[in-house]
Amino acid sequence: MTTITGVQVHDVRFPTAAAGDGSDSINRGDYSATYVELSTDNTLTGAGFTFTNGRGNEITCAAVRALAPHVVGKELTSLFAEPLDFLRSLTADPQLRWLGPEKGALHMATGALVNAVWDLRAKAAGKPMWKLLASLPTAELVACVDFRHIDDALTPSEAAAILDKGLDGLADRLSIIEQQGFPSYTTSVGWLGYPDEKVRDLTRAAYAEGWRAMKMKVGGPIEDDVRRAAIIRAEIGPDALLMMDANQIWGVDEAIANMARLAEFDPYWIEEPTHPDDVLGHARIQRAVAPIRVATGEVAANRVIFKQLLQAEAIGVVQVDACRVAGIPEVLAELLLAAKFGVPVCPHAGGVGLCELVQHLSIFDYLRVGTSLEGRMIEYVDHLHEHFTDPVRTRDGRYLLPARPGYSSDLRPASMAEFSFPDGPAWS
Amino acid sequence: MTTITGVQVHDVRFPTAAAGDGSDSINRGDYSATYVELSTDNTLTGAGFTFTNGRGNEITCAAVRALAPHVVGKELTSLFAEPLDFLRSLTADPQLRWLGPEKGALHMATGALVNAVWDLRAKAAGKPMWKLLASLPTAELVACVDFRHIDDALTPSEAAAILDKGLDGLADRLSIIEQQGFPSYTTSVGWLGYPDEKVRDLTRAAYAEGWRAMKMKVGGPIEDDVRRAAIIRAEIGPDALLMMDANQIWGVDEAIANMARLAEFDPYWIEEPTHPDDVLGHARIQRAVAPIRVATGEVAANRVIFKQLLQAEAIGVVQVDACRVAGIPEVLAELLLAAKFGVPVCPHAGGVGLCELVQHLSIFDYLRVGTSLEGRMIEYVDHLHEHFTDPVRTRDGRYLLPARPGYSSDLRPASMAEFSFPDGPAWS
Repeated sequence: MTTITGVQVHDVRFPTAAAGDGSDSINRGDYSATYVELSTDNTLTGAGFTFTNGRGNEITCAAVRALAPHVVGKELTSLFAEPLDFLRSLTADPQLRWLGPEKGALHMATGALVNAVWDLRAKAAGKPMWKLLASLPTAELVACVDFRHIDDALTPSEAAAILDKGLDGLADRLSIIEQQGFPSYTTSVGWLGYPDEKVRDLTRAAYAEGWRAMKMKVGGPIEDDVRRAAIIRAEIGPDALLMMDANQIWGVDEAIANMARLAEFDPYWIEEPTHPDDVLGHARIQRAVAPIRVATGEVAANRVIFKQLLQAEAIGVVQVDACRVAGIPEVLAELLLAAKFGVPVCPHAGGVGLCELVQHLSIFDYLRVGTSLEGRMIEYVDHLHEHFTDPVRTRDGRYLLPARPGYSSDLRPASMAEFSFPDGPAWS
Repeated sequence: MTTITGVQVHDVRFPTAAAGDGSDSINRGDYSATYVELSTDNTLTGAGFTFTNGRGNEITCAAVRALAPHVVGKELTSLFAEPLDFLRSLTADPQLRWLGPEKGALHMATGALVNAVWDLRAKAAGKPMWKLLASLPTAELVACVDFRHIDDALTPSEAAAILDKGLDGLADRLSIIEQQGFPSYTTSVGWLGYPDEKVRDLTRAAYAEGWRAMKMKVGGPIEDDVRRAAIIRAEIGPDALLMMDANQIWGVDEAIANMARLAEFDPYWIEEPTHPDDVLGHARIQRAVAPIRVATGEVAANRVIFKQLLQAEAIGVVQVDACRVAGIPEVLAELLLAAKFGVPVCPHAGGVGLCELVQHLSIFDYLRVGTSLEGRMIEYVDHLHEHFTDPVRTRDGRYLLPARPGYSSDLRPASMAEFSFPDGPAWS
């Protein structure tokens, strides 16, 4: 028996904006975490967070505090005896829900809190999150998903069939990624704030390290995008994958026109070509740019947006985010929707700790849901891993399987102290 | 010259939950306002707010504080010399935007702040908001709209043509509503928390007062909805309009099935039949329930959602909200989109002060954008008007034109003090 006795929220910010790391057509941030620690009546603790971009991290912290009464005093096994009741106590709170519903700061805070509870569960089970999820009975996984508002696209019995089928050959798939690691791509070469020479050097270095899939930012003046794409394609040759990411800056017609210009560099996908809420716009862009795939999801507000993107055949890559939505249960809904519609999942990572989280999601997806490596890659960004107690490990452009119990979400206490906002030494 | 010298944020909450006022299938709230006061270097002040449902109001207050540096120290005419720059300084802040984009708590706070600046502008001009808007040159109105992400559905030149055409016959239209008031409907009869006898009595009283259009909440057990619909239809006879509001509780298939049951009571519209983000779902429901109209918008996150609802022919009524989106400029975008697609606007009201705001929007829409009263009604809810210095006035189920300068958004100081959370006498 483990009872949650307290929720501590920490505003942790890393001063990344000055270096241009993470700069794109829309964002220029100090990578930050609304970091949640659960204390219990025994030695276990739970850690979860949502990633933010600097200013405003205090807003998601306030949202966690507003939600915290739904978990304080709760016993862990009882929360998971009725997992949908637990989830909806947060997502359908009759007063807080008005601030969403299921979107924005409140939903991100929900993700931080739900992930912390799931981290606690995985630690209590003594398993890394991917292994906990992969080993849960189908009925228990299905019971975690809120099918309200997605059951016109995915029913509980369809979900159960996907998860049952995922038991076939699971041991073989596990053996494959234990030996080979999980495919990955790097985003560290082409931030919009980097000068051409830095892009060239980083691309060359990444290729030498073994990366054969790289992502560049686009959405500046189109001639700049064209020039930078030419630099990267020249460095990586015709066979490596080049992904492009516009971070939502374009209108629908503008996206179509600009991709006609950039098509000569053979992009594998165009990510976030327009506003993330624009399902119909993504569908039009996907029809126009095919066979280039449209990818989106890092700021897709919830499972209802993913449902529609899939129903409308608007995307060819599902980029789930680990902590923008309501944590593990909502990501599970999104993985199941992607499997139902036959679209590969390549999670969004980077920021603070997103790589640490999403490796668990991709591994579980491969083992039990999507069951294929075809077109699957985990984003890799080489920032801020040193602040986590169980950082990601990569080899030759592939993620190695995390082994410690939990969701790899624990920040080092020294890092938390150093980068605590506004009173940590890094800020004062 | 008027310079904004300070932004004060007030957390004001009215204890409405206990009485069942405002209760529906999803919400059970203490109607609240994140209330923004702008001070200036002269005697003018600006007031704006966003409506929330009780708990969590401190989150939107925190968001206003995060946004406030974008207006403090700014001179009013300079803000409106480059209105799009001003708007995007808030909606596209390179760090805060991650918490949306353009949705949830952050966007609601943006609405409060933008509306306060516009209130200041109207007061400086000595005009009620509707009159200020109706009298602005077309080019000035168009310059306020952010066409990014909607220009595939509405171009600046199309918007200008709509607004220019709205100058024809404007004086005649004004004369009509000065004499007759603006059509309205009442939502005060059928909250889900009311027992049958209270619903019957309120319906009878409202009919006697002259109301010929009333809205009931649905989304409880379907037999309860049927029974309550029968009570109201029996009271109001076959000719009065009966609207139904499910407040998002249903799935898509569930909405279609339940409306087949409720169709016998001849509903004029079904409001919020499913999740507000589900454009494709609304489109399926609209095809299934026609000629009953699908209505939504009170929690539609932004103009991109409205754009799609209209593109997909998913709704027959556009229910803009005055302060969920980025205030006057984004509502203007939504009114223009509705006019382009030929769908009537019936704004969402109720809550705290929403009736006070939206009357200005509907009057402006009639005078200059939609230019018709056909199918246009302003929601009326008889709560909390006494706390405003310029409360709505109605006669025979119609709104009378507000006459004082500004956006009718000033709370009475005594009400603010009494209901200040958590320290006001009403809460302590």
